Amino acid sequence: MADAVTASSKEQLMSAIASEVAKIEQAMHVDLAVATKGTDPLLNEVLEYGMFNGGKRLRPLLVVLAARLSGFDKSKNEELYKLAIAFEYLHGATLFHDDVIDQADLRRGKPSVYKDFGEIAAILGGDFLHARSMFLIGSLGGTPALEVFCHATGSMVDGEFLQLRNAQNYNLSEQDYFLAVQGKTALLIGATCEIGAIVGGATSSQQQALAEYGIGLGTAFQIVDDLLDYQGDADRTGKTVGNDFQEGKMTLPLILALKSANSVDKERLLYLLANRDACKTGFSEAYDLIDKYDGFVRSRSRAESIMAKGVAGLDMFLSEEKENSASVSILHALAEYVLVRQK
Amino acid sequence: MADAVTASSKEQLMSAIASEVAKIEQAMHVDLAVATKGTDPLLNEVLEYGMFNGGKRLRPLLVVLAARLSGFDKSKNEELYKLAIAFEYLHGATLFHDDVIDQADLRRGKPSVYKDFGEIAAILGGDFLHARSMFLIGSLGGTPALEVFCHATGSMVDGEFLQLRNAQNYNLSEQDYFLAVQGKTALLIGATCEIGAIVGGATSSQQQALAEYGIGLGTAFQIVDDLLDYQGDADRTGKTVGNDFQEGKMTLPLILALKSANSVDKERLLYLLANRDACKTGFSEAYDLIDKYDGFVRSRSRAESIMAKGVAGLDMFLSEEKENSASVSILHALAEYVLVRQK
Repeated sequence: MADAVTASSKEQLMSAIASEVAKIEQAMHVDLAVATKGTDPLLNEVLEYGMFNGGKRLRPLLVVLAARLSGFDKSKNEELYKLAIAFEYLHGATLFHDDVIDQADLRRGKPSVYKDFGEIAAILGGDFLHARSMFLIGSLGGTPALEVFCHATGSMVDGEFLQLRNAQNYNLSEQDYFLAVQGKTALLIGATCEIGAIVGGATSSQQQALAEYGIGLGTAFQIVDDLLDYQGDADRTGKTVGNDFQEGKMTLPLILALKSANSVDKERLLYLLANRDACKTGFSEAYDLIDKYDGFVRSRSRAESIMAKGVAGLDMFLSEEKENSASVSILHALAEYVLVRQK
Repeated sequence: MADAVTASSKEQLMSAIASEVAKIEQAMHVDLAVATKGTDPLLNEVLEYGMFNGGKRLRPLLVVLAARLSGFDKSKNEELYKLAIAFEYLHGATLFHDDVIDQADLRRGKPSVYKDFGEIAAILGGDFLHARSMFLIGSLGGTPALEVFCHATGSMVDGEFLQLRNAQNYNLSEQDYFLAVQGKTALLIGATCEIGAIVGGATSSQQQALAEYGIGLGTAFQIVDDLLDYQGDADRTGKTVGNDFQEGKMTLPLILALKSANSVDKERLLYLLANRDACKTGFSEAYDLIDKYDGFVRSRSRAESIMAKGVAGLDMFLSEEKENSASVSILHALAEYVLVRQK
């Protein structure tokens, strides 16, 4: 009986999320048509192609939920969805540019914008999304929102530079790893929640709680991403397993294993890393060594405890309005999803 | 005697411009230090390298002058320069990205950011500048400024897409050419002046006059750019002569010549264009044919009349405050410079 109730409430939750996602996607179609009105048809074509490819719409969802929890005036729902999609645009802009940088032919299993429309379209399409995103945030959220947002964008670029500088640094510390993750992913997701809170009229403690939830979610997301790179099923993730190792990228499982390995194993791991191009069985041997020192298990447990801390802060919203519980449930579900996702 | 007076007032004008440029560059150094505080040192290094390479600072100069003419409160000068540099950042972001697109090794005679720091640094450095630029404009100029700015950015991207679509279209009309020029260059320079006007508290007719001056300046600038591509001195422009023709790019001199050539000459020009890779003397023969139909002379005269119209609108500022005449003189001098520049 208890199971049945859970299954049914899980279904309700999923349908609540699906209904929000549908509204978000509808708002994107409408806004892209407005934003590209009177421009070369190729622009709208590129943007529609690049922005509708099965994205999870996590960021706009967070804006909507954070704003609701902070008391957003429902009569202005249309504005809220417009603000929310700004964050999906920014995410899209990043992916357009990333695919140019990585010369990636595929994005979520179909040809990337870069591959299908070329480098110019990918860079400029990204710039257009970036500009539209800032416009929506500035005009709907004002200077405080712009400030949070630009700080996070700056950190994102900074995180990428840090990663660039850290490449092939086999001595990378756990702290450096978390700094890069914060910059690259977590602060932007935190900013997403924070701006939702600002627009909703949050108190400063509400704003902080939502920002911390977002930072936790983003950090956990990235750790799980790094775990999937070692342990994922290529058919589900759509990415080759072992990519990070083959590129000499230092992620948490490897960092933790190197830190606790005995000197023989540590030396072997470093040897495998340095000779990864020459030695084809290197990845599977490295995998076993990381596993021996619980690199994977400990990484996952870091992700879980970071996420748990972020989720705990949401309790303050439950004591207030009853309808908050639906939004808090969705945020809990997202946190759970991030930890168990297989792709 | 008259000559001596002119020379001395020209000197004064140049020194007035130089003093503004120095203030603008100082504001950029200060702001970049603030914006990159606490980030990876590589970011500041990339931005300082890319943003200080002898740029003319035309855009920030226009913001400062337009704001002054519109009655900007002098006690807020520091804010004005911060707003002004936002437009140089946006310009810089575009150049960073352009060099990636064109795989250009050189920018103003020294290695481009793309060449010196690599593609990732050039794309992300550009994104950072873009974000900082929007932040400054949004927080100092508010929603009206953001709106003008984003409309212009959208047009810029649109202009590039239009050009992409028009490539190798030998039937390109004069109207299509001007549409692409507006989008790529002119509207953004118009927006620069318009936002200066908004921030300065312009009346709507003042705002319109300044926007039109900017659009005229940007259009004339682009026409002269296209002329220099045929007639420039490579030692001064730093660019190979005949590039546009070799790429099959349809610019005004060629479009005008094709329109008025007799059928034999038109056919020959189209033949030279289509076979430009095979035929080494094609450019010089095409040059002579364009010249025969006054393609260069007529392009220059278009630029002059467009510029004259933009400049005429500035007269309204002269009837007001006496100190306006200094700012108007600088705008006149910039218009003149754009038409006679050799690089």
